[in-house]
Amino acid sequence: MPHLLLLNGPNLNLLGTREPDLYGSQTLVEIEEICRAHASSQDAELTAFQSNSEGALIDALQDAPDGVILNAGAYTHTSVALRDAIASIAAPVVEIHISNVHAREDFRHRSLIAPVALGQISGFGIGSYLLAIDALLRHLRQ
Amino acid sequence: MPHLLLLNGPNLNLLGTREPDLYGSQTLVEIEEICRAHASSQDAELTAFQSNSEGALIDALQDAPDGVILNAGAYTHTSVALRDAIASIAAPVVEIHISNVHAREDFRHRSLIAPVALGQISGFGIGSYLLAIDALLRHLRQ
Amino acid sequence: MPHLLLLNGPNLNLLGTREPDLYGSQTLVEIEEICRAHASSQDAELTAFQSNSEGALIDALQDAPDGVILNAGAYTHTSVALRDAIASIAAPVVEIHISNVHAREDFRHRSLIAPVALGQISGFGIGSYLLAIDALLRHLRQ
Amino acid sequence: MPHLLLLNGPNLNLLGTREPDLYGSQTLVEIEEICRAHASSQDAELTAFQSNSEGALIDALQDAPDGVILNAGAYTHTSVALRDAIASIAAPVVEIHISNVHAREDFRHRSLIAPVALGQISGFGIGSYLLAIDALLRHLRQ
Amino acid sequence: MPHLLLLNGPNLNLLGTREPDLYGSQTLVEIEEICRAHASSQDAELTAFQSNSEGALIDALQDAPDGVILNAGAYTHTSVALRDAIASIAAPVVEIHISNVHAREDFRHRSLIAPVALGQISGFGIGSYLLAIDALLRHLRQ
Amino acid sequence: MPHLLLLNGPNLNLLGTREPDLYGSQTLVEIEEICRAHASSQDAELTAFQSNSEGALIDALQDAPDGVILNAGAYTHTSVALRDAIASIAAPVVEIHISNVHAREDFRHRSLIAPVALGQISGFGIGSYLLAIDALLRHLRQ
Amino acid sequence: MPHLLLLNGPNLNLLGTREPDLYGSQTLVEIEEICRAHASSQDAELTAFQSNSEGALIDALQDAPDGVILNAGAYTHTSVALRDAIASIAAPVVEIHISNVHAREDFRHRSLIAPVALGQISGFGIGSYLLAIDALLRHLRQ
Amino acid sequence: MPHLLLLNGPNLNLLGTREPDLYGSQTLVEIEEICRAHASSQDAELTAFQSNSEGALIDALQDAPDGVILNAGAYTHTSVALRDAIASIAAPVVEIHISNVHAREDFRHRSLIAPVALGQISGFGIGSYLLAIDALLRHLRQ
Amino acid sequence: MPHLLLLNGPNLNLLGTREPDLYGSQTLVEIEEICRAHASSQDAELTAFQSNSEGALIDALQDAPDGVILNAGAYTHTSVALRDAIASIAAPVVEIHISNVHAREDFRHRSLIAPVALGQISGFGIGSYLLAIDALLRHLRQ
Amino acid sequence: MPHLLLLNGPNLNLLGTREPDLYGSQTLVEIEEICRAHASSQDAELTAFQSNSEGALIDALQDAPDGVILNAGAYTHTSVALRDAIASIAAPVVEIHISNVHAREDFRHRSLIAPVALGQISGFGIGSYLLAIDALLRHLRQ
Amino acid sequence: MPHLLLLNGPNLNLLGTREPDLYGSQTLVEIEEICRAHASSQDAELTAFQSNSEGALIDALQDAPDGVILNAGAYTHTSVALRDAIASIAAPVVEIHISNVHAREDFRHRSLIAPVALGQISGFGIGSYLLAIDALLRHLRQ
Amino acid sequence: MPHLLLLNGPNLNLLGTREPDLYGSQTLVEIEEICRAHASSQDAELTAFQSNSEGALIDALQDAPDGVILNAGAYTHTSVALRDAIASIAAPVVEIHISNVHAREDFRHRSLIAPVALGQISGFGIGSYLLAIDALLRHLRQ
Repeated sequence: MPHLLLLNGPNLNLLGTREPDLYGSQTLVEIEEICRAHASSQDAELTAFQSNSEGALIDALQDAPDGVILNAGAYTHTSVALRDAIASIAAPVVEIHISNVHAREDFRHRSLIAPVALGQISGFGIGSYLLAIDALLRHLRQ
Repeated sequence: MPHLLLLNGPNLNLLGTREPDLYGSQTLVEIEEICRAHASSQDAELTAFQSNSEGALIDALQDAPDGVILNAGAYTHTSVALRDAIASIAAPVVEIHISNVHAREDFRHRSLIAPVALGQISGFGIGSYLLAIDALLRHLRQ
Repeated sequence: MPHLLLLNGPNLNLLGTREPDLYGSQTLVEIEEICRAHASSQDAELTAFQSNSEGALIDALQDAPDGVILNAGAYTHTSVALRDAIASIAAPVVEIHISNVHAREDFRHRSLIAPVALGQISGFGIGSYLLAIDALLRHLRQ
Repeated sequence: MPHLLLLNGPNLNLLGTREPDLYGSQTLVEIEEICRAHASSQDAELTAFQSNSEGALIDALQDAPDGVILNAGAYTHTSVALRDAIASIAAPVVEIHISNVHAREDFRHRSLIAPVALGQISGFGIGSYLLAIDALLRHLRQ
Repeated sequence: MPHLLLLNGPNLNLLGTREPDLYGSQTLVEIEEICRAHASSQDAELTAFQSNSEGALIDALQDAPDGVILNAGAYTHTSVALRDAIASIAAPVVEIHISNVHAREDFRHRSLIAPVALGQISGFGIGSYLLAIDALLRHLRQ
Repeated sequence: MPHLLLLNGPNLNLLGTREPDLYGSQTLVEIEEICRAHASSQDAELTAFQSNSEGALIDALQDAPDGVILNAGAYTHTSVALRDAIASIAAPVVEIHISNVHAREDFRHRSLIAPVALGQISGFGIGSYLLAIDALLRHLRQ
Repeated sequence: MPHLLLLNGPNLNLLGTREPDLYGSQTLVEIEEICRAHASSQDAELTAFQSNSEGALIDALQDAPDGVILNAGAYTHTSVALRDAIASIAAPVVEIHISNVHAREDFRHRSLIAPVALGQISGFGIGSYLLAIDALLRHLRQ
Repeated sequence: MPHLLLLNGPNLNLLGTREPDLYGSQTLVEIEEICRAHASSQDAELTAFQSNSEGALIDALQDAPDGVILNAGAYTHTSVALRDAIASIAAPVVEIHISNVHAREDFRHRSLIAPVALGQISGFGIGSYLLAIDALLRHLRQ
Repeated sequence: MPHLLLLNGPNLNLLGTREPDLYGSQTLVEIEEICRAHASSQDAELTAFQSNSEGALIDALQDAPDGVILNAGAYTHTSVALRDAIASIAAPVVEIHISNVHAREDFRHRSLIAPVALGQISGFGIGSYLLAIDALLRHLRQ
Repeated sequence: MPHLLLLNGPNLNLLGTREPDLYGSQTLVEIEEICRAHASSQDAELTAFQSNSEGALIDALQDAPDGVILNAGAYTHTSVALRDAIASIAAPVVEIHISNVHAREDFRHRSLIAPVALGQISGFGIGSYLLAIDALLRHLRQ
Repeated sequence: MPHLLLLNGPNLNLLGTREPDLYGSQTLVEIEEICRAHASSQDAELTAFQSNSEGALIDALQDAPDGVILNAGAYTHTSVALRDAIASIAAPVVEIHISNVHAREDFRHRSLIAPVALGQISGFGIGSYLLAIDALLRHLRQ
Repeated sequence: MPHLLLLNGPNLNLLGTREPDLYGSQTLVEIEEICRAHASSQDAELTAFQSNSEGALIDALQDAPDGVILNAGAYTHTSVALRDAIASIAAPVVEIHISNVHAREDFRHRSLIAPVALGQISGFGIGSYLLAIDALLRHLRQ
């Protein structure tokens, strides 16, 4: 039974309480519960973790189980260290974004982690998380 | 019952016959059949079209049914005309890529169409098509 | 009696039906009729053609009569081939835009065809077409 | 009866006396007279002003009547202050150029004032002035 | 007996009738005949095709025989789709240019297709075509 | 008793009459009066001057009393001559902006005068002027 | 009674002990005390916090009281995550710098957080903190 | 007897009173006198003019006698209008700088006026003026 | 007896367990032991610390003993805060890299910390650490 | 009987002994012999020269006979002096490369000498030399 | 009696024989003779040297007498080594150019040696050499 | 017994006599002697060579013994030819710099030779040479 890590980066703990137009009205706790249920329905276990600290996210990646759904938030665009962490672990990582980052500011168009991720999914709201679980499980079971 | 258009751009008619390491060994005809079945299993109709011509792709977009799964191939990176076509139609468009374009040449990192797409999915092989169908149907049914 | 070609590029066949705030509510057919009448009132003949295909636009330019009013749409910003077609024919070409392209996205500020056009007119709605007819006829009659 | 300002920037007082190949052989006084007659024939009044000083041009813009035909010359490419003046007045401004600026040096391809102008006309010699009067009057009378 | 494709892109159908100073006075039909004879004299067959359409050129490349002499004209500098077509076929492609593109505008200095071509030849007028036939046949016979 | 110069650049004479959402509804005359009173309450004299002309602003800087509050408007981003004037006088200069220039267009993010100013204050509406008076007096009295 | 957060970023705990020429000779503890007294004299409460960790600064911003005075130090120039934190909270943030950052290295001229701050103050030594308190209280009381 | 114009731009009226390390200790009046004497000793007349206003400098250039020695100061790096003035007059212009501009800030390395000047001389202190007089007279007498 | 700090940044705790081709097969604990012994053999003490957190690395630098050997990993290329920490402490810092960073991706060619380091050593595997100890001790004993 | 110079630049004396995968296994001496024979078979004389020194190559170009085949190696990308030498002699120069330089590092895509060469040939191994001889002789005999 | 070195770089040995429109019709030998006479008339000795080799020019600079007139030709734009040679010797160096380099190709606008030269003179034909001798002697005698 | 080449590039023959603050007071001859002794103490032979000529340095590299310590001076930043020489020989090359090049001008931050060197050492004065000998011998003996 595959074990997935749902890893959320900076400011994603504010989901549901701030800027609902952009990010939806569900809280991170609710989203994590939805993801856990979605994984469970496909016979997979899902552990969730969030941190505002780049270092704590790297620590979590280094201890990743079989696969990772990573919403790195702002660190997507600035962190070579996260990129190196992804490149140095065996577990595949799917990069996701709730909003369509390409429709926002220019500095959000560049992802430092994309070249070492398995794939990217962005723009589908909470659906991005669920699609990533599906994609990751399909990959792990091939 | 929603009607989707599966639109493939330049050189994707060669799928399965060339560079199987990068793009997999299934032909475009087979992929279209898999997508049609996948849509059908979710009570949706799917029509497939492929062209190497930018103009023909724009024509197809202008006649799009309820939603579009678009693998624009190389035109992803060069065609403002495709972008304008997507922006001027009502049907939502999901941009997909078979390979992880961010792990390839620099000029493949920029997508001209992403800012006007609903969302993007890349890197999951044929799975990218199936995830896009799921994402599009979820969006249309909300 | 001078013969003019009114040449419209990609997505301009949607005029009047999409984004009327930006492009006005008249259809391309109506605009072509207005232009034909305007030319006729100045003792000139005007033929209209539209295509979403870069190649078809080049074909049309190569067969141009005495002068061309060209709204190249998105190809304005990406097509060196259109530029070369303009440079290689004898008929003068006036580049026009319905909206003020300089008030839009950065990539619309650069025109590849402007250096080889006779002149440019942009920002006056349908009026851009009529001013171009005036400018072209004045040029041809000098 | 609409009142227009014909505003010419640096070095345009030399028109007709220098570089006739590029700018034509008519003097600024003659051009202003032609424009005044052209406006008058369309039941409009036209006042002309020229200055080599950026500050004097801003002063004139701030006192503009119903509309402005502006040939900002070299300040087109360097003056954010002129841009701000145009943006802060109610009268619409049509940017014009005698020559085709896009066929000249690279630094003449960028217009700082275009994004806040109503529209641009360039490349038609003295005709650029007359077309601008037509465009401005059509706009004011809509 | 090797079979070669002589493939000419946009505006090259005007050869001989326009800008003879830059491109020479021979028509495309004459050049194709000269190339066919040159190939024939080396026991090779040569088929010629020209199109102004990017899509049609891709179609032709996908059906290429044993080798291709490609003068992609303006698409040399803008078409990632042609590049991908070349990369996905087995036949070697020699890129040629009649004029010395490096002595012309900056945007003609970059070739998107060169990295996937077998080699490039430019600047020798019609001779570029003949040298390319020689180079291609030598390569195919090694 | 220190003597300050309140120096306002291009288009700031329109304050209060144009774009009140961005710049507030108080006129320049009113703001100058508020500043004079604020300075006076701290035992300082304040003289106010505004000009749309770069040269006149340089003249004023060269004759500056003990310190300068400078809102250079658009010249902030384009005038090396103002920068040189500031660098060549003994009086300290505080650069201010009414709006938050960093939240506006890219070309307003670069200040040519900041490197030679004592400090910068931006984004506090009229408050920017008052804070600058405080900062300047504290500096002069140290 | 408004409650302010004085938030200092990386290396600012060394104030007063290192590089006194650039940053002054007062320690961070002394500066925090001066700020607390200054706020108190205006009937406001001020809490101070410093950290070298980007994550800890984001945590603090998310728990901000009525307003924030933020000296983000080096993170000013590199942290999109801090920017997002500022954008996602309701409390206004004033960005300050002790030295004139525009008179230092190029990479210190760009502030990632300025576009989402209320305003910026830089170059006045410890005075920058005091001016920011004044500006913030004026803003909160309007 | 040739008549030369010695034209000095912004802030050069402060020569001798400010920054003597960089610009020397002689006042502009003294320098003008030295230049007049130097010209006179070679049977030439020299008229001197200085202004901080770009417009006034353009006016002066348009009225230039047989040749111009131009120290455009900061406008060297920002004024396309001065460039156009130089290009549109018949009198040759020698660009000079007192200091070695290439040993200063990057933005002083680019001269907008150099491409249309006869030649440039920089770095020799007041000597730059005298060398320019020599160069200009030699040119005029050839 | 000099006391050195061996400071390792993000992902270096994985040394020896991941990517041995690039980084060698010795673990960080083993490397730290080798360095301690190497320092000891030269009558110096060496303390080792590793963290994935930028803030914790800054904390450690601020408490540095007589000298530092710093392998900042990915933070080398992104952290202005580390740079400022190095610049604000008295202890000299030697920057090292195990691999030759210049033979890797472009973004690894730029070191933000190099300008404030004493020197850099890269490309010699574990030897880079040992050479840095030698260099630092030679420097401290001069 | 035309006399050609075969001029090889830096490191080409190592041909055949190093990196045979990239440059083939024939030595420079052998290649020179093959070229001499090829020229001879077309009634032309060929002299060969190789140097690692930019200055020596310039000397050789200045003494060139009727035409030059130039493989400038690395100087292709860095030497303005070679460019000037080519531009200042009467003999036509054909630039050649053994490998396809466009398929290699970015800095090898730019040729400083191409704009002044007659034409370029690259990517055909030793065949590049032979094709260049053919091209040069055809040019000289026209 | 001051001793000057007249140092000419690559391709300047061709002066007078090639491109007389750009560089004049006098040979280098004649120019050297004119310079020697000009120096002699001012009681100075002048030695002349020319080489196409960067290394030989560095050697000559290292052995320079009291001052150098340097026309570095193409090395002006590419040689950091010449720059370092100038910076490391005591003799002042005046950089000269026969033509106005700013009116030529972009790559000739940047001088790597200018920041370490005493001053620059360009655009006056052979006169540039004579003016440089005057400037250098005035400098040496101050 | 390994044989090393100590190769010094342009202007390094001036070591000890010029700019002792930057490069130390020991002459090149003394440094070469120290290096020879240092190598000898580790049972290695060291031959020293210096040249100001890029070509002579390439010649020396092509004849290199078992390993090279290369201080390429200014050619580090401009010579692709040296890079190619290093890449085409079997002997490993250690790049060294006496000063910390990253603390100097921007153009010294880029090393063209670093990607093909074994490793780099910079900033340790003469110590850089000695560390390089140690690094090279350790590498050769592994």
